[in-house]
Amino acid sequence: MGWQVGLDEVEAIAIGAGVLGTGGGGSTTIGRIRLRYELKNYSKTCQIIDVDDLADDDLVCAVSGMGAPTVSNERLSNGQEMVTAVHALEAHLGKKVAAIIIGEVGGSNAIQPLIAGLQLDLPVVDGDGMGRAFPELQMDTFSIGGIPASPFLLCDIHGNTVIFDHIDTPLRAEAYARSLTIEMGGSALLVMPVMTGAQVKAFIIRDTLSLARDLGHAVLHARKHQLDAAQTVAEAAGGKVLFRGKIVDLFRRTTTGFARGTMKIAAFQNADDVLEIEFQNENLIAVHNGEVICTVPDLITLVSLEDGEPIGTEALRYGLRVAVLGMPAPKQLTTEAALKVIGPAAFGYDNIPFTPLSL
Amino acid sequence: MGWQVGLDEVEAIAIGAGVLGTGGGGSTTIGRIRLRYELKNYSKTCQIIDVDDLADDDLVCAVSGMGAPTVSNERLSNGQEMVTAVHALEAHLGKKVAAIIIGEVGGSNAIQPLIAGLQLDLPVVDGDGMGRAFPELQMDTFSIGGIPASPFLLCDIHGNTVIFDHIDTPLRAEAYARSLTIEMGGSALLVMPVMTGAQVKAFIIRDTLSLARDLGHAVLHARKHQLDAAQTVAEAAGGKVLFRGKIVDLFRRTTTGFARGTMKIAAFQNADDVLEIEFQNENLIAVHNGEVICTVPDLITLVSLEDGEPIGTEALRYGLRVAVLGMPAPKQLTTEAALKVIGPAAFGYDNIPFTPLSL
Repeated sequence: MGWQVGLDEVEAIAIGAGVLGTGGGGSTTIGRIRLRYELKNYSKTCQIIDVDDLADDDLVCAVSGMGAPTVSNERLSNGQEMVTAVHALEAHLGKKVAAIIIGEVGGSNAIQPLIAGLQLDLPVVDGDGMGRAFPELQMDTFSIGGIPASPFLLCDIHGNTVIFDHIDTPLRAEAYARSLTIEMGGSALLVMPVMTGAQVKAFIIRDTLSLARDLGHAVLHARKHQLDAAQTVAEAAGGKVLFRGKIVDLFRRTTTGFARGTMKIAAFQNADDVLEIEFQNENLIAVHNGEVICTVPDLITLVSLEDGEPIGTEALRYGLRVAVLGMPAPKQLTTEAALKVIGPAAFGYDNIPFTPLSL
Repeated sequence: MGWQVGLDEVEAIAIGAGVLGTGGGGSTTIGRIRLRYELKNYSKTCQIIDVDDLADDDLVCAVSGMGAPTVSNERLSNGQEMVTAVHALEAHLGKKVAAIIIGEVGGSNAIQPLIAGLQLDLPVVDGDGMGRAFPELQMDTFSIGGIPASPFLLCDIHGNTVIFDHIDTPLRAEAYARSLTIEMGGSALLVMPVMTGAQVKAFIIRDTLSLARDLGHAVLHARKHQLDAAQTVAEAAGGKVLFRGKIVDLFRRTTTGFARGTMKIAAFQNADDVLEIEFQNENLIAVHNGEVICTVPDLITLVSLEDGEPIGTEALRYGLRVAVLGMPAPKQLTTEAALKVIGPAAFGYDNIPFTPLSL
């Protein structure tokens, strides 16, 4: 089974991860450059395996960036954090890691595990714990399923490594890791979650790296054949185009480690026809002329009308011509237990219930 | 060699540690209650050993409280943090701890290691890395001597344990640990430094727990015989009484994890005769009618005129009748290398050189 990520898959995966990133998860611009470099550097491909290829007692871990995308987009990593941190984990537990998993398939956090796989000569599991991007650590299917938050690690760009050996709740893990990430300069490398093969099999959202690759190929295909990229990728993701227009208003600030804000998009032919989007690293709520039409955990992604390239919240600016895609969330994200953690109320929208995207 | 801490030594050590605490290091009020409780609970004494009793390859660690005394005085620990954290250290390094050392003999941090020794059934080494109290982690003879800051651990009152596995500089260790301590609620249990017996022998300030005990006995003796407690303890510490008077002005705030402020003390017979003291957890600079008369690292401690009890910066208030003691710092603290880290300039007093206390 399984498949390989070589140079031909980089662009597609990066674009698809951006689509699934719903504005967050970090820009893939630097990630695709780094992944290409590492593929050439190691003269090999990155092996993607099916989750069922894991043994139940295998030790696996995810790697990702932690912090606001507005920071990590400008502040480069040293490139060796993942090796440093995974080796520190192995020394701490006295056991070798058997495979890398993807914590968050949205944005740059889909690409970091591939680079880690190359650097550490480990396979990467096809799937992740979000099926998209979310701003906080406890917002994944593993945590919702009851997998303990600890142990986990943070590593800064100087190679400083901190092991959170025992942390009692996912919310505390988030608070402690966020605080240290801010002190580390606003971005850090996170090794989390650390699990057994059996735990991964129980809660992973399967095949989301394949999905990212396929969405990316859809965009590239549309681009090459001058098709409507937004429509093409929305269909490939089982969703639809919610709106097309120009960003006419934008309020964004980087605070407490997050890029938070709101934007207003006006239709081209009618400036009174507006879509407003609220975001916290990721796009969370889309309101069309006062009516809520799409809410987290369903996916809301802006793509450029020019070439279908997904647009992160750190890259928003006045005047961008965009299409807004709405895509249904994986079913694990819409259970009652999941909605308590990742529904609109979890982000402070107490009066907005989750209503599945109407297709 | 060595000696034992039993119920008869608790009060003396607590008072002496308060004198050496120079206002900081945390109140010993709770510490002495807890130490008495643990001595009764375990029905044994705490064994104090000479540093030369350590084998060169012994693993030793200090335990102490981290955070502002204004917080830790009100927010009780759960009592088991030291056991939790030391066991986590042993599991991490795969080696048993042979003895507990005292990082900071000033204030409650002289007492915590004794409780840890009882709880963990380990001896405690007579001596410490400060000979007093200091507000920041890198301000000890071990760090000044070049002992790496990591590994070290923080443990919160819920038993959450974080291992700082590799941290490149003492200042970074201070910044990261301070940030996490604040997120942990403003106080935490710190296991630091972690060293070998050989490293301890090279840099420890010897016999400072004995000194604390002796200073405390001097106060108790003066109290019992109605002698001048301030004068008695100043002489026992090789210092002098700098001033006697009443606190007439006090500015104090708890910020970025520290209790910072200034106080003004007026003489009883002449309100124009004033001593001003600047503090940052610890008392740092004493200025008598505009003239600097004592500076960090020399020790500045307020004791109650009533009974010679040392007064922490968290217990300062208008109207307190006090004597201010000035005591010379141990010689390891006044080397050129040490003064860069713990001289007045290290606390922001760029224009105040360290001038040894004139006796």
